[in-house]
Amino acid sequence: MDKTVTLALDAMGGDNAPEAVIAGANIARKRHPEVRFIFFGDAAKFGKRLARFKALSAVSSVVHTDEFVAADAKPSQVVRTGRNTSMWKAVEAVRDGTANGVVSSGNTGALMAVAMFTLRTLPAIDRPAIATFMPTLRGETVVLDLGANLKCNARNLVQFAVMGEVYSRTVLGARDPKVALLNIGTEETKGNEALKEAASILINADLPLTFCGYVEGDDIPNGTVDVVVTDGFTGNVALKTAEGTAKLMTNFVRQAFRSSLSARIGYLFARRAFTKMRMRADPRRYNGAMLLGLNGVCVKSHGGTDALGFATAIGVAVDMASKNAIELIAEHVGQLDLAPALAAESSVKAVPN
Amino acid sequence: MDKTVTLALDAMGGDNAPEAVIAGANIARKRHPEVRFIFFGDAAKFGKRLARFKALSAVSSVVHTDEFVAADAKPSQVVRTGRNTSMWKAVEAVRDGTANGVVSSGNTGALMAVAMFTLRTLPAIDRPAIATFMPTLRGETVVLDLGANLKCNARNLVQFAVMGEVYSRTVLGARDPKVALLNIGTEETKGNEALKEAASILINADLPLTFCGYVEGDDIPNGTVDVVVTDGFTGNVALKTAEGTAKLMTNFVRQAFRSSLSARIGYLFARRAFTKMRMRADPRRYNGAMLLGLNGVCVKSHGGTDALGFATAIGVAVDMASKNAIELIAEHVGQLDLAPALAAESSVKAVPN
Repeated sequence: MDKTVTLALDAMGGDNAPEAVIAGANIARKRHPEVRFIFFGDAAKFGKRLARFKALSAVSSVVHTDEFVAADAKPSQVVRTGRNTSMWKAVEAVRDGTANGVVSSGNTGALMAVAMFTLRTLPAIDRPAIATFMPTLRGETVVLDLGANLKCNARNLVQFAVMGEVYSRTVLGARDPKVALLNIGTEETKGNEALKEAASILINADLPLTFCGYVEGDDIPNGTVDVVVTDGFTGNVALKTAEGTAKLMTNFVRQAFRSSLSARIGYLFARRAFTKMRMRADPRRYNGAMLLGLNGVCVKSHGGTDALGFATAIGVAVDMASKNAIELIAEHVGQLDLAPALAAESSVKAVPN
Repeated sequence: MDKTVTLALDAMGGDNAPEAVIAGANIARKRHPEVRFIFFGDAAKFGKRLARFKALSAVSSVVHTDEFVAADAKPSQVVRTGRNTSMWKAVEAVRDGTANGVVSSGNTGALMAVAMFTLRTLPAIDRPAIATFMPTLRGETVVLDLGANLKCNARNLVQFAVMGEVYSRTVLGARDPKVALLNIGTEETKGNEALKEAASILINADLPLTFCGYVEGDDIPNGTVDVVVTDGFTGNVALKTAEGTAKLMTNFVRQAFRSSLSARIGYLFARRAFTKMRMRADPRRYNGAMLLGLNGVCVKSHGGTDALGFATAIGVAVDMASKNAIELIAEHVGQLDLAPALAAESSVKAVPN
């Protein structure tokens, strides 16, 4: 596998930029020897730091930008005036073919807006979605949307279902992935209108995916299905609640091991097993959300992550780029005739409550 | 404390009824010697079983009903035709003063509808909310709504905030509880219109509560605030995701202890500590959601819970009844002049986006 993958990195995005970006790239470099990096940002601020990592510098180049996107910048403002920011230039490198993908820990809304403006969405996709995979009892489950779209209509949800299914199958290698809509009950009568319409389309339209109806919040960690589709508000809350709960439980485990002399002795014997367990649930191992539905690989890293987390996000971009994820998604989505399904939506809408 | 508390139990509600209800009441009887029970349901179906529990029978009476509410019954249908169901009769006992509270594991929507119809909502409350407390790094946090209201406007959210604050203070004993709205970011610009309006009211109106702005999903398990307010859809997904993730982590712990001989030996030493830890996160210890905003104590138990979980739900009802929760909430909510705050809402609404 001699194929080089070049990634554009927004060196100025995130709470721990540029340190976490550079140190993260250095970890990723060892994991993925085929990767080259282009750092976008204020060279005066991170040039020296980068130079200290000799091996990383050898596979990296720097594009200086004076500006960067503030964490609290309004996406619409960034689209109007942000052309000289590190984020914009990094995304542009993907559009221009200089890079095979971009990774940023910056402002999510701005990244989505800039990526939509610069890379454009795939044909047949109205709105891109933010997707990630979460650890479950049965492996990993793809969840989308995680915050790109506060409110979603049935069209959006159906398109997310299709993209998530293709991603799960082609990139994660799931065989015949099961797809479901996130709801507050599994009965048909539950949920808002958009969910009911989306379910009706996914059941009745001739889409080449295995739709399993509704799942509830606990079905995500249970791994009941391979792809869970929801609106961005709910998905964001679910993801963060799961992360926080995993941290809470890790804390409970730590307290349990410290609660008595006997438990402390037990820890000495079980330590290695628990270090492995903590790694399994470490959110840094699940860092890196894909912006699906765009003409290019665009990965959003947690704003607060460290080098290890950023390295994982780079890994997600490498995976998508080397597996030609965008081409595969575009091909599958392009082949789908969503028109009858989406026409069916209006007839569903016409049914009185 | 000689004060007797009488609880009406819906013996026909839930997946494991009537077994879990009877066995749960028997556990609760030992924990709360001051409690008396009235079982509502098909006496032919559970009379013999109840008779087997001598001590429980001694503090219980039975009201026979031929009908019960099906798990998939439509709430509106139950309100029209469900007057002879076990659920309805049990709720009615609270209205009539025969019981100090009701506990049901039945259909949530139906219970809410019947309780609203029979008990009526408190003055100044438009819609009741389902509330529970969840375990956190810093104790317990009250979360509401958990599914009574799929969509909430700013008025609803503000009223939930007030009820949650009073509950946290008077029943849980929190001093100056902190209240926040659940959102997908802590910046002011995040969230939908209802959230922004509710935040504006809670900031600008002269409400006697400590409002801390927005929190995110991970702030629930982190225990950042004492009361988290959200719409019923999001709250339901967050609660179930947290429960599922706790289960996932417990599973990871079990696997870790089995992963090597050394870890198995460690388990022998740490077993007692981990049994305690599992109990801390056991969802059955947090079973029992309060329907807040009604003229009476009404507790909804998980449909799928067992006897231990049902006993916890009974405990919640006992706690609310013996601490005069409804009177305290009614008093505090009644004293609040929500009118200016809710008038402020319309002016917020008038501001163009």
